[in-house]
Amino acid sequence: QATREPHEGTQERSFSIDYDNNQFLKDGEPFRYVSGSIHYFRTLPSEWRDRLKKMRMAGFNALETYVEWSSHEPEQGTYDFSGINDLPSFLTIAQEEDLVVILRLGPFADAERDMGGLPTGCSQEPRLRLGARPCECTRVRGQGGGCQCWWWWLVSVLVVGWCHAGGGGCVSAGAYLKYVDAWFGDALLPKVKPLLYENGGPVIMMQVANEYGSYPDCDFAYTSHLRDLVRAGVGEGTVLFTTDGNGVGFLKCGKIPEVYATVDFGSGTDVAKSFDTMRLFEPRGPLVNSEYYPGWLDHWGAPHSTVKAEAVAKTLDEMLALNASVNMYMFHGGTSFGFTAGSNMNGAFQACPTSYDYDAPLSEAGDPTDKYWIVRNVTAKYLPLPPGKVPPASPKHGYGKVSLAPLGSVFHMLETVQKVTSKWPLTFEALLVPNGLVVYQTVLPFRIADPARLTLNDLHDRGYVFVDAEFAGMVSREQDMYDLAISARPNQTLTIVVESQGRICFGPHINDFKGITANVSLSGHILENWTMAPLPLTNAKRLDRALTRLRRWAASMHLPPHRLQGTDKGGMTFFTGHFQIPTNSSHPMDTFLRLDGWSKGLAWVNNFCLGRYWPEVGPQVTLYVPRGVLQPGNNTLVLLEQEAAPCLTPDSCYVTLQDTHVIDGPTPL
Amino acid sequence: QATREPHEGTQERSFSIDYDNNQFLKDGEPFRYVSGSIHYFRTLPSEWRDRLKKMRMAGFNALETYVEWSSHEPEQGTYDFSGINDLPSFLTIAQEEDLVVILRLGPFADAERDMGGLPTGCSQEPRLRLGARPCECTRVRGQGGGCQCWWWWLVSVLVVGWCHAGGGGCVSAGAYLKYVDAWFGDALLPKVKPLLYENGGPVIMMQVANEYGSYPDCDFAYTSHLRDLVRAGVGEGTVLFTTDGNGVGFLKCGKIPEVYATVDFGSGTDVAKSFDTMRLFEPRGPLVNSEYYPGWLDHWGAPHSTVKAEAVAKTLDEMLALNASVNMYMFHGGTSFGFTAGSNMNGAFQACPTSYDYDAPLSEAGDPTDKYWIVRNVTAKYLPLPPGKVPPASPKHGYGKVSLAPLGSVFHMLETVQKVTSKWPLTFEALLVPNGLVVYQTVLPFRIADPARLTLNDLHDRGYVFVDAEFAGMVSREQDMYDLAISARPNQTLTIVVESQGRICFGPHINDFKGITANVSLSGHILENWTMAPLPLTNAKRLDRALTRLRRWAASMHLPPHRLQGTDKGGMTFFTGHFQIPTNSSHPMDTFLRLDGWSKGLAWVNNFCLGRYWPEVGPQVTLYVPRGVLQPGNNTLVLLEQEAAPCLTPDSCYVTLQDTHVIDGPTPL
Repeated sequence: QATREPHEGTQERSFSIDYDNNQFLKDGEPFRYVSGSIHYFRTLPSEWRDRLKKMRMAGFNALETYVEWSSHEPEQGTYDFSGINDLPSFLTIAQEEDLVVILRLGPFADAERDMGGLPTGCSQEPRLRLGARPCECTRVRGQGGGCQCWWWWLVSVLVVGWCHAGGGGCVSAGAYLKYVDAWFGDALLPKVKPLLYENGGPVIMMQVANEYGSYPDCDFAYTSHLRDLVRAGVGEGTVLFTTDGNGVGFLKCGKIPEVYATVDFGSGTDVAKSFDTMRLFEPRGPLVNSEYYPGWLDHWGAPHSTVKAEAVAKTLDEMLALNASVNMYMFHGGTSFGFTAGSNMNGAFQACPTSYDYDAPLSEAGDPTDKYWIVRNVTAKYLPLPPGKVPPASPKHGYGKVSLAPLGSVFHMLETVQKVTSKWPLTFEALLVPNGLVVYQTVLPFRIADPARLTLNDLHDRGYVFVDAEFAGMVSREQDMYDLAISARPNQTLTIVVESQGRICFGPHINDFKGITANVSLSGHILENWTMAPLPLTNAKRLDRALTRLRRWAASMHLPPHRLQGTDKGGMTFFTGHFQIPTNSSHPMDTFLRLDGWSKGLAWVNNFCLGRYWPEVGPQVTLYVPRGVLQPGNNTLVLLEQEAAPCLTPDSCYVTLQDTHVIDGPTPL
Repeated sequence: QATREPHEGTQERSFSIDYDNNQFLKDGEPFRYVSGSIHYFRTLPSEWRDRLKKMRMAGFNALETYVEWSSHEPEQGTYDFSGINDLPSFLTIAQEEDLVVILRLGPFADAERDMGGLPTGCSQEPRLRLGARPCECTRVRGQGGGCQCWWWWLVSVLVVGWCHAGGGGCVSAGAYLKYVDAWFGDALLPKVKPLLYENGGPVIMMQVANEYGSYPDCDFAYTSHLRDLVRAGVGEGTVLFTTDGNGVGFLKCGKIPEVYATVDFGSGTDVAKSFDTMRLFEPRGPLVNSEYYPGWLDHWGAPHSTVKAEAVAKTLDEMLALNASVNMYMFHGGTSFGFTAGSNMNGAFQACPTSYDYDAPLSEAGDPTDKYWIVRNVTAKYLPLPPGKVPPASPKHGYGKVSLAPLGSVFHMLETVQKVTSKWPLTFEALLVPNGLVVYQTVLPFRIADPARLTLNDLHDRGYVFVDAEFAGMVSREQDMYDLAISARPNQTLTIVVESQGRICFGPHINDFKGITANVSLSGHILENWTMAPLPLTNAKRLDRALTRLRRWAASMHLPPHRLQGTDKGGMTFFTGHFQIPTNSSHPMDTFLRLDGWSKGLAWVNNFCLGRYWPEVGPQVTLYVPRGVLQPGNNTLVLLEQEAAPCLTPDSCYVTLQDTHVIDGPTPL
């Protein structure tokens, strides 16, 4: 049955755990949820209601979402709850669509997001001093100047990771916790509190930390601090829970006293055994799978992940038959727009693509898939389906070819952007650059072997090396290749364009500084005196202004079109073009950007960053262009192509807007 | 005193060792020599007499030279004693200039020559089968099919080196010795025999093997075989000797029974101690230093080697005061024209420059240096100086700027040269290419990671990698860098232009196959189906024809000048230009080619290959252009620039012919 409003005056709104009967109680009545994950930060606000409604129409009675700290605190102490970050509106719409809410507070999320949703702000203050060795903590607050850290894990990650990165600088545990305390206490919890179920809102449960048992640190002082922080902010009326893998080892450290422990696992898993493990830590109370996977995440260059709908349905049925509450992660994955996709480090560094389709019941563009219907049939066995019809897939349209022309190169843009100079190369974080490209340059002061061994010990993540604007080779974290043989003469300029490919979202390498993170040497001689030019790619307004300046600069130089490209192949070049959308009311519609012949880069439509494209390695071939970023009449497309464009002739210099999405394209051997 | 002719009829010409009196006997009279090394293969025949006369005028009474097997047997079984290989003429001129001769037969020489003067022919027959692993001997003759080798060292080098190189193929010891036997027995010794002192010629002594004691193999069967081979060819009337370092360890294995053992060492060495070591192996007989170093060899990228003249004079004086015979290595170093310079492997691979000046008494261009006069003063204390004046330095002239223009690129040349296809890449030796550049190409059959790791396990020596004619990076044996991150798509062509930088001339790596010597893989996937295009650089006539075809092809394509270059920077491009020489009798004069702004390549004047240039790494900055290759009137210069030419504008596209030689230019850190 649907969530019932309590009789006013007769019974307060309440949500609790009924340990005696192994169930939840909502307003005093037995309750179990079938929930689905939809991340507000992965769908345009204009589509939130559509996606939530479709989930509700599959019989699901709850929404689960992470809170993404980094999106809400883009600069330390400045909080953003507007637009796609308007969490209260998202939760309110959920409530309007008859869904209760399970909120995963964090502070850490994972979710295949840049740095797992942790802000990079805490890493920004101390400047890396790359020349200093051995590792030296330049900025230690708290316990007497050492790197004594009571939240051992995060600090070990932050400090050790940082120090390993090549020099000094560490954030003390005290500084980090102050940061968390402010975020929870001053910003997040006050926003959430009115949305709690007891206060008339939809939020029945809140997760503290996230899969913390996957880390070896087992610091109960830290997790208890988080629990107390939440309790202090919202009171005692909400069920708090943790989520961990379905193994004793995970739960042992993930479980927080007085916080309900739940497990996560996917289809084909032994359900009874998994819940037996949960029972070791929660002998009584409702069975809960907090992340039941209907699909799986993707990585660039690896085949698209899929899970058969029948297998998903079967295990779901098994769990629901046990009266378990289940959250399907994801019910609708959506899109990691802009620079928000994260990376994993599984032996090798693997970046996540822009699409977060996840092979979920609702596709990336929000359309019900076969899996939607099959899952809905299972849900319907246990919960009433709401009346009415499932909303249809939103219409798609192919707007056709969009001709593009070069606007100017990354190197040209250097003429018009602010630069930073430093003896040692600075990380993106030290440069206050959230993501994108930073151009590092130094002039060779000495005569060097030919070729010389350029050693970029720990560059994150992808470096394009040029000698006096001539391409000289690449370094790549994905390939674990940081050495390069280059030919260069004294007084030539060494340019390294560094791309961040998404910070690691999970595991010990999560404190993932970007850019040049260690000394650069040439045949053993450390290079000094760097000029760094961050490109304003993450801020639409600043990018727009920079492109205007670039256009003016290029016009003033009277460069022929081919000279507007950064390389002969069209790499390191901004391209732009326009396309028209009919002004009748059925438009704009969702569409998909196909980039055949293009290599690797970023795409913007009307100043909205669609995200990274990389069709050559797949599996994602097209980029989702939601109708919400389109407008009737003239629309502007901008690409930043890093490697090669099909633009040797103007005729071949185009992309296509088509009506079908391709996210399972061929991938490398 | 000068070499005296014996009284005809009264005493036979004879040369022997007087063990009783620790001296040589020439025609029955006590004799000691002060000899100097001049290699006929490093000076134009037109200059031989000049250089020998100048040495004689320093009081030296003997000439020493290696015989370079590889020059005399460019193809197996075809012997060449013409032109610069006309050893009999060189020795006859020495005799005419009143010098006796000490001939170092080999078969191995070292001398900083390509493969130490060993022909690469013995390595040519068996094709490398790079796909076959583990190492498999594809062609074993002799002892029953195994790689049983009684000359253990050379075979270990040939076989193990070869097999290590990536696949099968080995030359049996039997095959090698047959090859040596033919060279000595059929070609060299019959040429030398009439030139022996006893037969009226200048040759008083002959060296068997060369510093063999520096190798750990100690195979007396091999060295005795060489001794017997020489004796069988020339009889018993000539003194045979060996040369080894001045340590017991060297002499222990270098000494051959019935062959006189001598030592070598440079200035500043403890002379008495060195000769004491010699005395352990030759208790009686004359003291001999067979290689007394007035300077030292150079390597590209390392500072020019010099030894102070005073130090050279002092130790020389000490040795002569002991009545020792001494050979100065080199008295005149000359030039490693063309592709004849070798390399060393001292931890790292180090190639020798074109100049073999050696800081010797006579400069590379044959001019007496200060060291000449200081050494002459020492010699004069012990041997009579011949009457007359020392010939002056030959006049030099700066012919000025030579404007150059691109003729076409290495890639264009591929259109007009013969190619070889093979499943696996073939070495230069298998392709019958002595030296130069081979262009290896394969089409990528699969989609591969971006970037992919291109692994060129053991490429010799320098590889320029292109993807569809776009430069993608370098690999370098000097830097021990064989991996490269490249971005490439299916059906793109991977091109690797491989340069041989001179085969190793000494030590265990001497069997130095050139080219791609091991499987090439891309992210672990072995690349097959190669096309190889050897460029005809070592044969002047074939190169001239190829350049004519290239010129015709370029004209037919109507390419603008900048399209005639292989890369934007002017790399991989043939350039040509002309210069005029006055027709009056004082010209042509020696001159020096200066290549400011050029990077690395080869230079030809009137189809004569001057050798490799590489001014960016030094120490050699100019190339010696002997007057013998010049002609009154029009002269043609051709450059093959591998990396970068100063030819962005025609005005800056030139070289200079100047009147001074620079071989001590700046070198890298």
